[in-house]
Amino acid sequence: MTVTTDVRDTIAHLRVQVADLHAELPRNQLVVWTAGNVSARVPGRDLLVIKPSGVSYDKITPEAMVVTDLEGELVDGELSPSSDTAAHAYVYKHMPHVQGVVHTHSTYATAWAARGEAIPCVLTMIADEFGGEIPVGPFALIGDGSIGRGIVETLRNHRSPAVLMRNHGVFTIGSSARNAVKAAVMCEDVARTVHLSRQLGAPLPIEQHHIDSLYQRYQNVYGQEPTK
Amino acid sequence: MTVTTDVRDTIAHLRVQVADLHAELPRNQLVVWTAGNVSARVPGRDLLVIKPSGVSYDKITPEAMVVTDLEGELVDGELSPSSDTAAHAYVYKHMPHVQGVVHTHSTYATAWAARGEAIPCVLTMIADEFGGEIPVGPFALIGDGSIGRGIVETLRNHRSPAVLMRNHGVFTIGSSARNAVKAAVMCEDVARTVHLSRQLGAPLPIEQHHIDSLYQRYQNVYGQEPTK
Amino acid sequence: MTVTTDVRDTIAHLRVQVADLHAELPRNQLVVWTAGNVSARVPGRDLLVIKPSGVSYDKITPEAMVVTDLEGELVDGELSPSSDTAAHAYVYKHMPHVQGVVHTHSTYATAWAARGEAIPCVLTMIADEFGGEIPVGPFALIGDGSIGRGIVETLRNHRSPAVLMRNHGVFTIGSSARNAVKAAVMCEDVARTVHLSRQLGAPLPIEQHHIDSLYQRYQNVYGQEPTK
Amino acid sequence: MTVTTDVRDTIAHLRVQVADLHAELPRNQLVVWTAGNVSARVPGRDLLVIKPSGVSYDKITPEAMVVTDLEGELVDGELSPSSDTAAHAYVYKHMPHVQGVVHTHSTYATAWAARGEAIPCVLTMIADEFGGEIPVGPFALIGDGSIGRGIVETLRNHRSPAVLMRNHGVFTIGSSARNAVKAAVMCEDVARTVHLSRQLGAPLPIEQHHIDSLYQRYQNVYGQEPTK
Repeated sequence: MTVTTDVRDTIAHLRVQVADLHAELPRNQLVVWTAGNVSARVPGRDLLVIKPSGVSYDKITPEAMVVTDLEGELVDGELSPSSDTAAHAYVYKHMPHVQGVVHTHSTYATAWAARGEAIPCVLTMIADEFGGEIPVGPFALIGDGSIGRGIVETLRNHRSPAVLMRNHGVFTIGSSARNAVKAAVMCEDVARTVHLSRQLGAPLPIEQHHIDSLYQRYQNVYGQEPTK
Repeated sequence: MTVTTDVRDTIAHLRVQVADLHAELPRNQLVVWTAGNVSARVPGRDLLVIKPSGVSYDKITPEAMVVTDLEGELVDGELSPSSDTAAHAYVYKHMPHVQGVVHTHSTYATAWAARGEAIPCVLTMIADEFGGEIPVGPFALIGDGSIGRGIVETLRNHRSPAVLMRNHGVFTIGSSARNAVKAAVMCEDVARTVHLSRQLGAPLPIEQHHIDSLYQRYQNVYGQEPTK
Repeated sequence: MTVTTDVRDTIAHLRVQVADLHAELPRNQLVVWTAGNVSARVPGRDLLVIKPSGVSYDKITPEAMVVTDLEGELVDGELSPSSDTAAHAYVYKHMPHVQGVVHTHSTYATAWAARGEAIPCVLTMIADEFGGEIPVGPFALIGDGSIGRGIVETLRNHRSPAVLMRNHGVFTIGSSARNAVKAAVMCEDVARTVHLSRQLGAPLPIEQHHIDSLYQRYQNVYGQEPTK
Repeated sequence: MTVTTDVRDTIAHLRVQVADLHAELPRNQLVVWTAGNVSARVPGRDLLVIKPSGVSYDKITPEAMVVTDLEGELVDGELSPSSDTAAHAYVYKHMPHVQGVVHTHSTYATAWAARGEAIPCVLTMIADEFGGEIPVGPFALIGDGSIGRGIVETLRNHRSPAVLMRNHGVFTIGSSARNAVKAAVMCEDVARTVHLSRQLGAPLPIEQHHIDSLYQRYQNVYGQEPTK
């Protein structure tokens, strides 16, 4: 597969954006060492831009980012793609509306994932951003495609842009790479708050019709312009 | 409604102050992403200065701040006001002594709010700053005025400048925007300390007459000049 | 009381040192807002150098530091002394070997203090630095001298340079202001580690003869030169 | 013992590397004050490069690093070696494949160590990096060689590059000083995540054959080139 000249500009732009978004992961304390990765779909092409494998956060530059196809095979770049590339690629292949994917082992969310327990919707900000509980995906081994399948099968049935992969960590999706990063930040934030709340008793539930109302409003009117 | 020339100087000054105070929220780890907001009343006018909706903390400038009336309608500024503006406006309308309002989803305070549980006064710094427990306000949906009403009805009956809104987060008031920010910082600090203390047993109560004595002293003699 | 020219140089030096040491408190996450203070005795004089009341950590300069006598009365400086000055002064008056005092409301140590519970000596670093458990002092109100008395009466009977004042916070002492700051940093660190350890079970005790042996060794041979 | 000219270049290079790696300890919140140390073996020589005793992290320079033999005796440098040097030296003497050693009192890992409890392998990243549980070593006093013996006897029987020394802290080993630092960072990260997960229930186990498969893959294919 070759990358034509006209798509090069788009890719150059996405390399900058994806490199910049990686800085949000340590800034929001979602990752340690070289763990975690952000990718963006190349619009209209069966390609994605992602972090290379095992590179420190202070060495991430646009040039270091790599381009792969939706099988996870390297198309452009000097370094090997992240070992999580196959999972990102599977999501883009099977969820055409997804433009960005993020993976972290953020502490509190991964603590829920280790118990295989969904985060209940007991905060208005969970209703706003996730539209209900944050669900758990299956145990899956890296290398056999089961991570990507587990993400897609879980998120297809939920409003939530985040899934807690059992014994592993978090994957989030978004209508842009930036929105997927936002979902990863919010997921850890609510995972922490609900964890703490549960330590000293039972958080109060929010009624389903309130959850629906909060979700509809937030998806339509928050921010400087409609997000959908 | 028009803003006359003479109030423009005051508003220009408040834009700088409110923009600067927003930096205290991430510095004190009270917010993630674009959550949280600070406002100031324009003295003697039915106006307030507040953060626009959905803007990153590293993009907050005096120019980006917006001015609304006490119905939350935009009077001056390029961007849409924070989606929490109606709640701020309601507080200014019904509590004439309040000059500043802050809203956060700070982690430990919100964990108490999710259980609908007040923070008991078991530290001398809670007696100093809050004069007793930090109370819980009702569950309230954004958009129908119930958040503002819940804040005002709860705080009218308490010494505390902070209220934990059920399943939501924290609102604080102050005799200045800076004092409201201080209350938000102290609220999270004591929410965390009492949370931790409770995890391993029961914090010892402080007798009511000691609470009264600490509160009176702190409100009158602390700092470089009396705060009231 | 007047300060003669020859002691002015010493005081000028201590103002720089005490101002610099205050930066360690936020750096080590021991304080929020304007809470916390460090003082140093002026050697051979009944004087101390301390932080003024209610001043932000980013506004602390050598010039802002104030000098008081051992009754806590201002001798030199533009601003009012910290409201905790009387407690510091009492310690210097009654413990002649103490050259530095630190006060914080650091989170984990204060959580133990709220329960009125000593931190048990279950880590070799507690044995090294504190020589046994970190004890609890009495409940004491600011303003009547009972805080200073509580500190002195508790620490006189312990190897520990740190005391957890009930429902309040931590005071530490040292053979220098820097050593008192070190004790405050170590106190919070072990308060946190033992808190966490206790959450999931019972930390294993260390036998008394091992505690004694660790303490003797650390007080005599650690660092680049003997500390006593 | 004298250091010949040809080994001086190697040592100069290791001084820079070891000094730089010390910056990772506070950056990853593994240490407070002067605690913690990193060392590197001088390849092909019975020498190691290590941090001096009791020196602040902001005063660590290549020149301040010291060189000792494998008895922990100073060979080159101005300052006294870390009081943990004997333990590092013992590891290099008895584990010839080890090129780097790290010691910390990182909070969550030390909380497990205080209970004498191994960290169970309930996360895929524990399987990847540690190949199973992170084991506990014996209680050992500084000064009699028992720390070094405890590390070596524990790690010889495990895949894990990290050992939790009872009532004390963490030691990690690596095929380079950088890999030993990575193991220390990952050890604290998984200690924290599993701690939190256990607070609200029982983390789900990972089957042994999955652990074996994850470990084999990670040790062979992760990063830009094989790590073994």
